[in-house]
Amino acid sequence: MPKSSRIRVVLVGGSGYAGFEAIRWLLRHPNAELVGVFGPASELGPMDGFYPLLSKTVALAQELFTPDKVAATQADLVMLCVPHKVAMSYVPALRQAGLRVIDWSADYRLADARVYEKWYCPHTDPAGLAEAVYGLPEYFAEQIKSATLVANPGCYPTCAVLALAPVLRAGLIQPEGIVINAITGMSGAGRSASLRDHYPERNENFEPYGVGNHRHSPEIEQTLTKITGKQVSVLFQPHLCPMDRGMLCSIYAEPTGKGVTAADVTTTLQAAYAKAPFVRVRTGLLPATKHVAGTNFCDIAAEAAKGKVILFSALDNLIKGASGQAIQNMNLMFGLDETTGLY
Amino acid sequence: MPKSSRIRVVLVGGSGYAGFEAIRWLLRHPNAELVGVFGPASELGPMDGFYPLLSKTVALAQELFTPDKVAATQADLVMLCVPHKVAMSYVPALRQAGLRVIDWSADYRLADARVYEKWYCPHTDPAGLAEAVYGLPEYFAEQIKSATLVANPGCYPTCAVLALAPVLRAGLIQPEGIVINAITGMSGAGRSASLRDHYPERNENFEPYGVGNHRHSPEIEQTLTKITGKQVSVLFQPHLCPMDRGMLCSIYAEPTGKGVTAADVTTTLQAAYAKAPFVRVRTGLLPATKHVAGTNFCDIAAEAAKGKVILFSALDNLIKGASGQAIQNMNLMFGLDETTGLY
Amino acid sequence: MPKSSRIRVVLVGGSGYAGFEAIRWLLRHPNAELVGVFGPASELGPMDGFYPLLSKTVALAQELFTPDKVAATQADLVMLCVPHKVAMSYVPALRQAGLRVIDWSADYRLADARVYEKWYCPHTDPAGLAEAVYGLPEYFAEQIKSATLVANPGCYPTCAVLALAPVLRAGLIQPEGIVINAITGMSGAGRSASLRDHYPERNENFEPYGVGNHRHSPEIEQTLTKITGKQVSVLFQPHLCPMDRGMLCSIYAEPTGKGVTAADVTTTLQAAYAKAPFVRVRTGLLPATKHVAGTNFCDIAAEAAKGKVILFSALDNLIKGASGQAIQNMNLMFGLDETTGLY
Amino acid sequence: MPKSSRIRVVLVGGSGYAGFEAIRWLLRHPNAELVGVFGPASELGPMDGFYPLLSKTVALAQELFTPDKVAATQADLVMLCVPHKVAMSYVPALRQAGLRVIDWSADYRLADARVYEKWYCPHTDPAGLAEAVYGLPEYFAEQIKSATLVANPGCYPTCAVLALAPVLRAGLIQPEGIVINAITGMSGAGRSASLRDHYPERNENFEPYGVGNHRHSPEIEQTLTKITGKQVSVLFQPHLCPMDRGMLCSIYAEPTGKGVTAADVTTTLQAAYAKAPFVRVRTGLLPATKHVAGTNFCDIAAEAAKGKVILFSALDNLIKGASGQAIQNMNLMFGLDETTGLY
Repeated sequence: MPKSSRIRVVLVGGSGYAGFEAIRWLLRHPNAELVGVFGPASELGPMDGFYPLLSKTVALAQELFTPDKVAATQADLVMLCVPHKVAMSYVPALRQAGLRVIDWSADYRLADARVYEKWYCPHTDPAGLAEAVYGLPEYFAEQIKSATLVANPGCYPTCAVLALAPVLRAGLIQPEGIVINAITGMSGAGRSASLRDHYPERNENFEPYGVGNHRHSPEIEQTLTKITGKQVSVLFQPHLCPMDRGMLCSIYAEPTGKGVTAADVTTTLQAAYAKAPFVRVRTGLLPATKHVAGTNFCDIAAEAAKGKVILFSALDNLIKGASGQAIQNMNLMFGLDETTGLY
Repeated sequence: MPKSSRIRVVLVGGSGYAGFEAIRWLLRHPNAELVGVFGPASELGPMDGFYPLLSKTVALAQELFTPDKVAATQADLVMLCVPHKVAMSYVPALRQAGLRVIDWSADYRLADARVYEKWYCPHTDPAGLAEAVYGLPEYFAEQIKSATLVANPGCYPTCAVLALAPVLRAGLIQPEGIVINAITGMSGAGRSASLRDHYPERNENFEPYGVGNHRHSPEIEQTLTKITGKQVSVLFQPHLCPMDRGMLCSIYAEPTGKGVTAADVTTTLQAAYAKAPFVRVRTGLLPATKHVAGTNFCDIAAEAAKGKVILFSALDNLIKGASGQAIQNMNLMFGLDETTGLY
Repeated sequence: MPKSSRIRVVLVGGSGYAGFEAIRWLLRHPNAELVGVFGPASELGPMDGFYPLLSKTVALAQELFTPDKVAATQADLVMLCVPHKVAMSYVPALRQAGLRVIDWSADYRLADARVYEKWYCPHTDPAGLAEAVYGLPEYFAEQIKSATLVANPGCYPTCAVLALAPVLRAGLIQPEGIVINAITGMSGAGRSASLRDHYPERNENFEPYGVGNHRHSPEIEQTLTKITGKQVSVLFQPHLCPMDRGMLCSIYAEPTGKGVTAADVTTTLQAAYAKAPFVRVRTGLLPATKHVAGTNFCDIAAEAAKGKVILFSALDNLIKGASGQAIQNMNLMFGLDETTGLY
Repeated sequence: MPKSSRIRVVLVGGSGYAGFEAIRWLLRHPNAELVGVFGPASELGPMDGFYPLLSKTVALAQELFTPDKVAATQADLVMLCVPHKVAMSYVPALRQAGLRVIDWSADYRLADARVYEKWYCPHTDPAGLAEAVYGLPEYFAEQIKSATLVANPGCYPTCAVLALAPVLRAGLIQPEGIVINAITGMSGAGRSASLRDHYPERNENFEPYGVGNHRHSPEIEQTLTKITGKQVSVLFQPHLCPMDRGMLCSIYAEPTGKGVTAADVTTTLQAAYAKAPFVRVRTGLLPATKHVAGTNFCDIAAEAAKGKVILFSALDNLIKGASGQAIQNMNLMFGLDETTGLY
């Protein structure tokens, strides 16, 4: 793709951490350029007003979002980094205007509107939902290539599904009774100030949250079922960890038979991801968040103990868990090598 | 206990984090005084040389350990904060000299020498082992009161056992297949400098370690079996968390019947710890390490989701997980109220 | 002081970090007891609702403040931990009710109402101001003993003044042109959530603030002038450091003569604080915030380089910088040894 | 520069933090490629053995350094990331082999061998020293372009000099009596494990070090003198800050006249750096380490208070303070735009 035909990208919702991170990756991307940033009336102005780090690299200001303004940028792609519900109120008009969209919210992740409505709110764009492709490139690359609407996966689902899918598909573990004990760095909790995440409350503090009701739970189950064809049920338990970024899942599952060893699971993972540029199956080394920080990698390792299979999976919640994955999807959608601009 | 009859305490091994913490608590204790600190030839000198924080509060120097020197202090109690194997080489002589001992190492925690030898090394003091009392006051207070040798429990076992014991004993969860996903702050990893725990490696880093082979695993099982009379099997998986102190276990267990609710488990926990001054059963609030940091409390909460019972348990690894618990044991051994000097 | 005559303390404003810390120290104090906590209508309820760490140790609830209610507790002392302006609206009525008061705000720290009004707002209690004693025990112990109203010093002023006062008084450094480069841990910035102190903004971030206009600046100058009799002028520059607690001043001053050495300054400091239980003059070791964390100590060291005298001073902003100093003042006011309950 | 003629870069000493960071930037660079990594016998092996983060992106192993082996790679440039003294023992042979070198050590930074020898050790390559160019692109770009040996500046000197040089040159501040109060994140202290930088010692700890004897002090003075023609004297005082990366200097200087305002200084800085792509002169916003983390920028702001000029300067110690600056130098040496591959 010659420079003259760079992908023109518009970002809607650039003031959150994932949007910020997307901007940084787009700046480095050899075949894409950021041509506009749009947001709500309450958050307008130069991008380096939100993030002083961006001064001298991004001259754009976040302007008031309207579908017409976005269309006027002659963008090839819209990255939609807005809250759920808002996203599906924007998508139809953008698609009407002929724009391809990668939506980072939950609005198009759950294929079944009834499941969506149970966890979120009434779904207002069933047509979009029917056409949306779940943007996990390791499993849906073909559909992503031609998609006009991609639902960028959640960070926890990416981390958990990449570890579990091959092992479930190979029938090495039971699809029921899986425990996913997950931790996230604090950028994953967003940029809204709260007492809970006030520095002196959060520093030196580790704690669980969202017991039994985290919205990433149905997304994990749906995706695993879609990939493996099995009815999967997981107990997903997230925790807040005092660090900026990083996510790690410690997953406990029942093997299907006594003969299942860690080596079997490792071999299965290695085969599954032999050609996946951003998944690293580790042996002799357990995943750690610092091994993936600032990268688009997901590191996975398999172990076995006390009659259970244990999977560890780590990624950077803002990259493989958000912006990096979005760019990986963009690359696929526009015929580029999946890894372009992502090292 | 009049001031004139304060408990005279000797600390052996004062240069580690737990020893340091013990010194601070002893300084505040109204009925105890630190009368000597002893250590190996490689670590001698004024205590504030090891910990400048102690200047002007502790005038003692760590002197070369010999049983005779300890005996010469006319101590009532020896707190032994030395590595396993070393501990059992010191204990017989100390007891011979008529001293009561609280040993912080693993040497007297595993009642069965064969189990000890499987995880550690040959046991050289079977006589001591036979008489040692496991120092978890919530369960063994009566034996502790008259004990001459107390094995101060490990941090992880304290955290896990306090949460699991009542629920297992009440028959609400299955004794097999329990998953204990645990995290610790870095003071729990000791004071020896290593690349793994070098600040720039550890900060912003979360990772699992010790899969299937952490030595606290048999201690947890043995203690639960001792308390509940049931053969208990746990999969214990620890992780390193970038913070100074704090420990949190997220425990996943199978209920014995479909009717078991989180409320049932909570009620059981509340009943079990109604009179335990340092256990707090939480409702409407999940345990967090910052809720217990700097205290001798262990906070526990019960939840249920996806057909499993979930227990969360948090404590300060250096206090209820080490020095605070040792002082709680000391209080019991010398007829004081369990909480003396521990708020 | 027999237990029957413990000092009865009321805390007004218990929901901030310094109030919380005061509660913890009062719990451990052998001759004081907390008999009531009062606050504004917006922040009422059990203390462990604000700080779950306090469960099972403090049964008190924060009740709506009225002078009558405070008087009804039969308190001997009121610790006033409320914002400036609010403090001076409470003090007259409390003193009218015969209560002794330690005020933690700035309202009674600046002896000259005109200076106060320049930096804050109109002063509404000139009578109180005239009688208030500045609660820096190392310099004003005699006045504090009989005071009915003590102005508990700011954290930065305590840290800077303890280092500078003896050296200025001895005429070793010039009273003009002093630079105080200070850093604080984030508990010093209070408990109100803000984007600035949101965990992902603050972690891994170090930055200056309040250039030329920090309100502790006139307090430092006034106190130094009062102690030394010299007109003192300082450039005080604070910075935010990503940690919970701790404060460190690096102070640069011109020696009065070429002959002034670091040893001279050290000797002067040692002489000045020979009997001060909570000041430690360091040699061969520079102050570090971890040496004083969780203690009421202020560590000071003197150096000389490039023709300047350098003073380093460190303390725990919540203890010697707030609650510990308040308790030190309380001890003096009620005839106790200054150090009671403070180790 | 067509892809076929990419700059072939060899890294000597890839196991430290700055070398690691250089590898990451080289991977992204459109006109350079890493063709070899060499090191001492004690640190050989695959690069992802040192840094698991690099797996799947760097296939190279660190091989035993010999000048011949380096020459055999047909490299265009050697980045030398080895300790001082070692560097100057390698440089002559590398240059003999026709290789251009960017040396990251101190060996070629101090133009005067006598100054070098006072702070370090005898200098063994006076010929190299005579030809070396100091690699601060904002001031020596022309010489860098044709240099065969570039001395990559220290992190502290870069941070301090960029702020001070224009202001001194414009005669707005006195060249004597300047105080540079600096802080660094811990990656600046290197990768050797030590008790000082062991996580539980360093976390929540802020402290000064190197009083009056930090080796960056003469480098700062020499560089300022070289740029401004004035005899400059600075008191440089560094501190360790509990974070991974980031550096901030708070600089206090005497204005040359009463009329010098912050605006004057700002205007001077803006003029000096109008064309410098990596220096940002801030107004209405103070530098903070998070504004520059992960970037090659140096942010500077000027203030005035209490009769002094205050300069704040922040950069990422591993990027503008080391690897990014080296790549900026490489770009200049090979005729590329200075910013290539650096966003």
